[in-house]
Amino acid sequence: MTAVETDETGRIAVVGCGTLGASWAALFLAHGFDVAAYDTAPGFADRLRASVAHALGQLGELGLRGSGRLETCTAIEAAVSGAIFVQENAPEDEAVKRAVLAELDARAAPGVIVASSTSAMLRSRIVAECRTPERVIVAHPFHPPHLVPLVEIVAGDPATGERAAAFYARLGRRPVILRREMPGHVANRLASALYREAVNLVAEGVASVADIDAALCNGPGLRWAAMGPHMTYHLGGGAGGIRHYLDHLGPSQVRRWESLGRPELSDAVKDAIVEGVEAEAAGRTLPELEARRDRALIDILKARTEVAGS
Amino acid sequence: MTAVETDETGRIAVVGCGTLGASWAALFLAHGFDVAAYDTAPGFADRLRASVAHALGQLGELGLRGSGRLETCTAIEAAVSGAIFVQENAPEDEAVKRAVLAELDARAAPGVIVASSTSAMLRSRIVAECRTPERVIVAHPFHPPHLVPLVEIVAGDPATGERAAAFYARLGRRPVILRREMPGHVANRLASALYREAVNLVAEGVASVADIDAALCNGPGLRWAAMGPHMTYHLGGGAGGIRHYLDHLGPSQVRRWESLGRPELSDAVKDAIVEGVEAEAAGRTLPELEARRDRALIDILKARTEVAGS
Repeated sequence: MTAVETDETGRIAVVGCGTLGASWAALFLAHGFDVAAYDTAPGFADRLRASVAHALGQLGELGLRGSGRLETCTAIEAAVSGAIFVQENAPEDEAVKRAVLAELDARAAPGVIVASSTSAMLRSRIVAECRTPERVIVAHPFHPPHLVPLVEIVAGDPATGERAAAFYARLGRRPVILRREMPGHVANRLASALYREAVNLVAEGVASVADIDAALCNGPGLRWAAMGPHMTYHLGGGAGGIRHYLDHLGPSQVRRWESLGRPELSDAVKDAIVEGVEAEAAGRTLPELEARRDRALIDILKARTEVAGS
Repeated sequence: MTAVETDETGRIAVVGCGTLGASWAALFLAHGFDVAAYDTAPGFADRLRASVAHALGQLGELGLRGSGRLETCTAIEAAVSGAIFVQENAPEDEAVKRAVLAELDARAAPGVIVASSTSAMLRSRIVAECRTPERVIVAHPFHPPHLVPLVEIVAGDPATGERAAAFYARLGRRPVILRREMPGHVANRLASALYREAVNLVAEGVASVADIDAALCNGPGLRWAAMGPHMTYHLGGGAGGIRHYLDHLGPSQVRRWESLGRPELSDAVKDAIVEGVEAEAAGRTLPELEARRDRALIDILKARTEVAGS
């Protein structure tokens, strides 16, 4: 039952059932896996079932109608016992992560992968109390994980990384195995670099928050849903491709880098962002905005038959 | 005939008929405008007609089947005479831009907007030789402009900016009017900030070029096609929205900013990028990659019924 790389289904433990955990659970269920869910919060089961039902409706639109069974557990050992894979989504607190991962490592069957959804922490630090740290990995999803395909994997050894990648690929995810650990992994570092300049453009009064968002959404962001940045510059280099681009336009790229802003998140800048986001939201509530985002994501995922170079 | 904000159609001058000019021409034609095209390159007309035919086929897939007529001109005055709008796409050389814009300004009918597609230059510098600079604006598209909706506008006065925005909105574009000029406008600055970290991750050996591209395409890039970065963090702040995000997670965002790389485009880094892009391209030629990108863009544009908060 530890061979998650086979076509067999089985039971997956979801430990930590907030927004992330619910989204993972729905994804596993929609692909026909049973899920054993555990959380320390009282009354988590009802909230989890409601979130899972909502996410399963969205996954149904994508043609996923697996018949996995959701069981909620009142003890962590009941969730982990018999699991062929463990997905951990405890709070982003290093002491908590260390303790939870050590317990999961102690209780999971031999060879079962224990995957932490952590976005901000390094694998080497959070596995420190594990007895068999090799099987404990980082598998960082993007919100909401049942819709956004990326899973960033940091493993202690290549074979475990490959096994985990094969598992997530079966779930329609796009696994990316990091060659070495790095705070923020890959995607959040890219997002953070972009956001710094997005904040700078607000601070410098170049455009409104809504217009900066719209510029990304209808310009490079749209294009990045079709093709990554390196490949984009390959096509921007004319017949000489990326080599020509780097040799001839590289220097202007470097000058642009040097001109980028280094904004402070001062109270004035924060106020300008909050005011701008409120104007952009135009009275829509958070659930309404979330529904619009998910609608657009589902539409794009249904339509995107192929991605250039990925 | 200068009232481009009415529902009347008319003739648009496209001056400079490389890749950008051809893409603009196709967009105008597909929306029912006639186009008078001019370029200094010998034999440009045949290349232009071939590119326009290709782009019109793609626009047909998006339901745009306007019946504009394409005329190619051997003199700039023939292209501009009678035009209700002028789109300039001369080479990105300040002296060339200045001279071309001055000539277009001198020849266009009073009140007609002369729009430069420049990506890298400041409006204040390229209009320096114009007699009536107020009507000369920057209107920077994203490649390929007949598919990617963003048009960044830098105008000398608000009324002209609004007139231009209304014109581009009629063409299904998403105009963004900058409050003040800035090298790289908005979107290329965001793209450049992201690319710096994408290069850093290659230089630091964190992931392969293909995996960095895939991480963006299947993670934040996909999400940015649905929602801009400021609004994304509004949803990332829980019930407290962007205010809560900035107050509680702002400090970790600032720490991440400080940890971002400052890579040099050394020969070794350039070699690693070129090698990685070649691996990602997997033998596909530039036209094949371009076709895949356009296929994905068209699929997404057809599917994306609404964008959250834009």
